[in-house]
Amino acid sequence: MRIAPERKDFPDAWYNVVPDLTFPAPNMRSPSGYRLGPHDLEPFVPDELIKQELEQEQREISIPKPLQEYYSDWRPTALYRAERLEKELGTPAKIFFKLEGVTSYTYEANTAVAQAYYAREQGVKRLVTGTGNGEWGVSLAMATNVFNLESSVYMVRSSYEEKPHGRYVMEVLDTEVIPSPSDRTATGREQLEQDPDSPGSLGLALSAAFEDASRDKDTKFAWGTVMNHVLLHQTVIGLEAKRQMRRAGGRPDILISAVGGGSAFGGLMFPFYKDLLGKARFIAVEAAEYPSLTKGQYGYDYGDSQGLAPMIKMYTLGRGYMPPKMRAGGMRYHGMSPLISALYREKQIEARAYTQHEALGAAVTFARAEGVIPAPESAYAVKAVIDEAIACRENRERKTILCVISANSNLDIESFHDFVDGSDSAGEGFSESASQAALSNLPTIQGDE
Amino acid sequence: MRIAPERKDFPDAWYNVVPDLTFPAPNMRSPSGYRLGPHDLEPFVPDELIKQELEQEQREISIPKPLQEYYSDWRPTALYRAERLEKELGTPAKIFFKLEGVTSYTYEANTAVAQAYYAREQGVKRLVTGTGNGEWGVSLAMATNVFNLESSVYMVRSSYEEKPHGRYVMEVLDTEVIPSPSDRTATGREQLEQDPDSPGSLGLALSAAFEDASRDKDTKFAWGTVMNHVLLHQTVIGLEAKRQMRRAGGRPDILISAVGGGSAFGGLMFPFYKDLLGKARFIAVEAAEYPSLTKGQYGYDYGDSQGLAPMIKMYTLGRGYMPPKMRAGGMRYHGMSPLISALYREKQIEARAYTQHEALGAAVTFARAEGVIPAPESAYAVKAVIDEAIACRENRERKTILCVISANSNLDIESFHDFVDGSDSAGEGFSESASQAALSNLPTIQGDE
Repeated sequence: MRIAPERKDFPDAWYNVVPDLTFPAPNMRSPSGYRLGPHDLEPFVPDELIKQELEQEQREISIPKPLQEYYSDWRPTALYRAERLEKELGTPAKIFFKLEGVTSYTYEANTAVAQAYYAREQGVKRLVTGTGNGEWGVSLAMATNVFNLESSVYMVRSSYEEKPHGRYVMEVLDTEVIPSPSDRTATGREQLEQDPDSPGSLGLALSAAFEDASRDKDTKFAWGTVMNHVLLHQTVIGLEAKRQMRRAGGRPDILISAVGGGSAFGGLMFPFYKDLLGKARFIAVEAAEYPSLTKGQYGYDYGDSQGLAPMIKMYTLGRGYMPPKMRAGGMRYHGMSPLISALYREKQIEARAYTQHEALGAAVTFARAEGVIPAPESAYAVKAVIDEAIACRENRERKTILCVISANSNLDIESFHDFVDGSDSAGEGFSESASQAALSNLPTIQGDE
Repeated sequence: MRIAPERKDFPDAWYNVVPDLTFPAPNMRSPSGYRLGPHDLEPFVPDELIKQELEQEQREISIPKPLQEYYSDWRPTALYRAERLEKELGTPAKIFFKLEGVTSYTYEANTAVAQAYYAREQGVKRLVTGTGNGEWGVSLAMATNVFNLESSVYMVRSSYEEKPHGRYVMEVLDTEVIPSPSDRTATGREQLEQDPDSPGSLGLALSAAFEDASRDKDTKFAWGTVMNHVLLHQTVIGLEAKRQMRRAGGRPDILISAVGGGSAFGGLMFPFYKDLLGKARFIAVEAAEYPSLTKGQYGYDYGDSQGLAPMIKMYTLGRGYMPPKMRAGGMRYHGMSPLISALYREKQIEARAYTQHEALGAAVTFARAEGVIPAPESAYAVKAVIDEAIACRENRERKTILCVISANSNLDIESFHDFVDGSDSAGEGFSESASQAALSNLPTIQGDE
């Protein structure tokens, strides 16, 4: 059942959680180790976004009018009550889901349009980024198109070849898509020399894009997740959900999102943080293959695999952690947003990990009840939702659960097919040894905190 | 720019155009040639839908409350003004598009849920149908799922193998998908005997589904287009658009839709018919490969390729017309809705045909301006919109154009990729001789009109 969205659900300002945190927000470090300042980001990030990234005091960051107008092409998105799923599970819990990425392909459009807008305002000509299966790249392609910027996306080669749906969308939208590794960058050439058939990784694609951006003053790098300004833009999700939940007559007791880099999770929960800290549970769900929160180490690590991007204080599996095969491209990142990492460190949020098999199974149950097939990333959130709803049934608790479905499965329906026809493997699981090896070269930082 | 949809845009009754037509609506014939009555449809169609199919007097057909509720999961859909496209084209025309199929995969969900609802009310256990690329099958899968019915979809074998996206969605939603021809039906076995590698056709898939439904009293056949009750259900599009256009401050001068079987076109234009006949232009756009209106013959022909379905008075290329290769599965049908056919016969609507190359090129222009990649079917409508907008520029006319985008390209992005990377052929075009051959076995009907 859709809670009909109303125009006034959409906010005119993003919400910056940093001033409301009960602890100091972690700092970033430049690639060479000193405390990061605006000038370190200038070659890569438009000025307004740097301000947002480093903003410590202002809670409300106005959304510029022209950007509000563009957001209104697909926002406010709808909140749904999953009544058929509740019935199917026989749970007294109320389950709500915020459905993102319906008109806009994925929730990542929420930050893509903001980044493209500020880039254009500053006279930037071109944006570059790295993408896995293409979700983030597609959002950036839409945004750069609207704001008349050029764009190039380095796409993990194995996805480029095996899951080309996202690539096709980007190309139709006139974005250059480059399989990574490629000979376009030094890091790519290096990798190809070591392994001419390299399938690539998200870390490598990000390094390539970083290198590309550093070569040209008219080109900037666009971040798909992890960074504070990205999570800031995503708060439109939670701000809308808050108003819509009020209309639906409920305050959430449990908030759930999948976490890859953490931006969907932050976007949903930050606006509820101040009111519900200690009253509601915030659950971050990761892939068992990429358990940075539940099995990673807390410390400084680079945002990309080659050490070109800033260092971030976060839970990390090591920047060279090599991806076991798994479907959900958005979950394949070695680290985690510094804000989400700090919240976990402070025990203000919970984290758990599920296998791909568990996640896809839950998503099929959800799809058959609700008629919406969640993206493989969102499948992880759905698994936690179902587990919590079943716990409510067993404990006879009428809790209200709110989750975010960051996109439907249009860009990656194949994942589900393998599951449904039984050709899906259980997955390779987390590789403890690979992560240990990757963590052995964590940078050493002087004078932390 | 989205004209924010409001709850009250959604009607509580469908609009039946038949009583308002300025001419008598055409009758159907049973497969053996006599004038068709309710009993001929009973083995295949739930009773309420038969009433709707044959209704001559009642203009408003109430939408049952539970069905209204389910519609509200994705309706009202949004109306957009294509301002960036207008600017790109330098036209003084205002271009509006109604965007369907965003949450629901395709516009065909509008009739699928109605058919599933009435089937369940009558105690039917299972629905069957035929589908090309899978758009219609996906909508039926969603609908049968929601109303707890079983469903089987005969899918054209070449699409089943080469464009499996739609198949995957149906299978995740627990619908049985059978490649057609198959040995499940006599017509399928016959075809396979003649040609074991038969790629199939929509006509054959429909015959298979018809045969399947005729064997079992608990199984009914679901129509994706052509029939009056299907077009009736689709009037939610035009009814909403009428209210939304009023809010956007304009009365359309030109209404445009692609036509395969005619249901998107009818759904958009019927609600405007009475007010705008003689004042606005209604343009039906077909594929040059399947030009039933512009190059077909007007007369009775069967709805399927094997002559198991009722005979329909329509523009037809002959039920055995073999499909030249083309992408837009929804345009590959030998005939046309009897209502749309009669409107064209009476010169109350216009028709034109474009090649696949022209259509996809226009859709890419549209996508790059608006950030929405239309389904290949809708690409044909978009080509006409652009041509009319350019004519407005040349004639300095400030006309208002309204079209329907029946779905985005999620289920068939490959079509665009071939186009963008240049591997797309110009298409094989219409085969005059194949149609002549197919028309040579049109049934002879006694005592017409």
